[in-house]
Amino acid sequence: MSVTVCRKAHFNAAHRLCNPGWDDAENEKTFGVCSNPNYHGHNYDLIVKVTGEVNPGTGFVIDMNILKGIIEETIIKRYDHKNLNVDVEDFKNTNPTAENIAVAIWNLLRAKIDENLGLKIVLYETERNFVEYAGE
Amino acid sequence: MSVTVCRKAHFNAAHRLCNPGWDDAENEKTFGVCSNPNYHGHNYDLIVKVTGEVNPGTGFVIDMNILKGIIEETIIKRYDHKNLNVDVEDFKNTNPTAENIAVAIWNLLRAKIDENLGLKIVLYETERNFVEYAGE
Amino acid sequence: MSVTVCRKAHFNAAHRLCNPGWDDAENEKTFGVCSNPNYHGHNYDLIVKVTGEVNPGTGFVIDMNILKGIIEETIIKRYDHKNLNVDVEDFKNTNPTAENIAVAIWNLLRAKIDENLGLKIVLYETERNFVEYAGE
Amino acid sequence: MSVTVCRKAHFNAAHRLCNPGWDDAENEKTFGVCSNPNYHGHNYDLIVKVTGEVNPGTGFVIDMNILKGIIEETIIKRYDHKNLNVDVEDFKNTNPTAENIAVAIWNLLRAKIDENLGLKIVLYETERNFVEYAGE
Amino acid sequence: MSVTVCRKAHFNAAHRLCNPGWDDAENEKTFGVCSNPNYHGHNYDLIVKVTGEVNPGTGFVIDMNILKGIIEETIIKRYDHKNLNVDVEDFKNTNPTAENIAVAIWNLLRAKIDENLGLKIVLYETERNFVEYAGE
Amino acid sequence: MSVTVCRKAHFNAAHRLCNPGWDDAENEKTFGVCSNPNYHGHNYDLIVKVTGEVNPGTGFVIDMNILKGIIEETIIKRYDHKNLNVDVEDFKNTNPTAENIAVAIWNLLRAKIDENLGLKIVLYETERNFVEYAGE
Repeated sequence: MSVTVCRKAHFNAAHRLCNPGWDDAENEKTFGVCSNPNYHGHNYDLIVKVTGEVNPGTGFVIDMNILKGIIEETIIKRYDHKNLNVDVEDFKNTNPTAENIAVAIWNLLRAKIDENLGLKIVLYETERNFVEYAGE
Repeated sequence: MSVTVCRKAHFNAAHRLCNPGWDDAENEKTFGVCSNPNYHGHNYDLIVKVTGEVNPGTGFVIDMNILKGIIEETIIKRYDHKNLNVDVEDFKNTNPTAENIAVAIWNLLRAKIDENLGLKIVLYETERNFVEYAGE
Repeated sequence: MSVTVCRKAHFNAAHRLCNPGWDDAENEKTFGVCSNPNYHGHNYDLIVKVTGEVNPGTGFVIDMNILKGIIEETIIKRYDHKNLNVDVEDFKNTNPTAENIAVAIWNLLRAKIDENLGLKIVLYETERNFVEYAGE
Repeated sequence: MSVTVCRKAHFNAAHRLCNPGWDDAENEKTFGVCSNPNYHGHNYDLIVKVTGEVNPGTGFVIDMNILKGIIEETIIKRYDHKNLNVDVEDFKNTNPTAENIAVAIWNLLRAKIDENLGLKIVLYETERNFVEYAGE
Repeated sequence: MSVTVCRKAHFNAAHRLCNPGWDDAENEKTFGVCSNPNYHGHNYDLIVKVTGEVNPGTGFVIDMNILKGIIEETIIKRYDHKNLNVDVEDFKNTNPTAENIAVAIWNLLRAKIDENLGLKIVLYETERNFVEYAGE
Repeated sequence: MSVTVCRKAHFNAAHRLCNPGWDDAENEKTFGVCSNPNYHGHNYDLIVKVTGEVNPGTGFVIDMNILKGIIEETIIKRYDHKNLNVDVEDFKNTNPTAENIAVAIWNLLRAKIDENLGLKIVLYETERNFVEYAGE
């Protein structure tokens, strides 16, 4: 009997789309206004989905407060009110597209969540643009 | 050609997290404020997802009004404006965590939906905490 | 130049509609399922609106973090994960309708917000039922 | 490493539920008010989900602006501010239920999206009624 | 002590923008795709706001269930699953713009709500386009 | 008969809270993480409210498409995918708090909207923090 529990969090960050290995003209051509060298930003909404058996004692797959704490310590402190390109090591050599941010978040959380539990994330860059990643 | 039709419903209920087999101290330690003996409550949002072939005559997997009626009769009348721990048989001996409520709802609906149709539910306890269950 | 700054918060609580001066039959007749003696509950969303001049140094009417702290200390600690009828002094002799909860919240906040600032609140009992109060 | 990117769009359209092969009485009996011969209408929300490998150069599964353009050209121009039964060829002989509209949209998009990429859509007829289709 | 209680409702309808006193060319020129002779449609969201003193017995400005019933009887039955231009008398000679629908709704409700109570409505044609009217 | 028509728009931007006349220590002390010298960012939602008489010919207070165009030309092109502190003249000497951005937007729009029409704006910095301004 496997249930998925989901927790929503958010962080506000600046970024620009930019392949660090490309010159300015190629970045501008590929990413347009998203490549503004002075950055723009987003309110990112993050949904973390954890799948597993329900513990018969607690009735929990994972205590939502523990999951909330893991997300806070692992992701929010690292990304919130930051410039993803400048302040965050994960994107020093990686373009902070929604796809790449989602993969980075999944890898960070995977290391903190019991390996018997499944993990999937949904990351909203805007209400209209979002990505899903399950480590596969 | 298999399509999933989804219907959203909601109910308002009181509950407290409490393993009926544990003493007060253990419940308080495990569940914190969620175990307040005087109860707290939620606006629960429920999404019911039914998967199957599209009927070539009606163009429906299942008539949304029939699905709405099944949810109303089976779940809303049972849970809405109730104290889940006190008024609802399903949680007399079961802790009404989101996980356990989702499993109870799925079991109640499974008995009313054609067995050729797939069934999955999503239950929101709050906008930030929700669970998914597909009977597996 | 007067700007209104708005901060959204929420709390989860149990309640029942019940005039403490009426007998059970009259409460049941007037409030129906909302008067269930075992309580039901809601996820309340609260919007606090503070109006005043923009401080030329900070660019703030009021620091949103200070406002957030006042709401947390004054309202959320008092109401969240509580049974409004049983646990909260404000409704010992007052029926916790959305109207009366809004008036109680406004009075509590009014005492903590600079008297030169205007104060209005919006309280959502559900997505479909909400009330507004400005102390007038 | 497979990521799903999702793009939300919307269109406003009139329709009526009606099997063109049935007489009025049978349509009325089966579809009730939804079969009003003078039509009613909806704000449809469409989510298009595209799954594939992340391009190491761009960091994209698919450029969201290209995906937005495909949806605009293929779906929105075809369905927005239209009467689905009268103006749109896809429903000349097909009842425009949410299920059938979803299948039609999926087929139209499938022809425009690289065959190496997975495709799934979610179509909201109202906030409470929506369908999912993945071409299976 | 005056509180405003708000109730949200919705209806789905077809319409076209069209001044019945103008010819087709002028309607097309002024209203563009919104004037499609075959109609398009919307999910309208309606918020009804009623302002007055809180009754000391009930704790209500107006019983939300009574308000819900008035909206259902007066507006939803009249407009839901209808073609506003064809089926609804209010727009036989009036262009069903959001502005004019709002005024019509306000007038219909004003006749049913106690004259000692204030009345304001908000009508959403889409999430991005909405109007407010208070009878002034 | 005065109706208010409302149009929602949005823009994504980077900013930092910083009084250009203060030193780093004072900015850091006053604005905390919001003063990160490398910037953070937001998805801003903007609601523009225009109040006036309904034109008896069109049924409009103002053509929503014209209002949409004014917002696009005047605000979105100026602020979207920009760094408010660096790229936008309005905040060269002004701290881009939500309050100050709202006042700047109102002033820009006021110059483009017929003076017989009332103007109010609502600016969401996040779902939980927003401001209202009506030029008074």
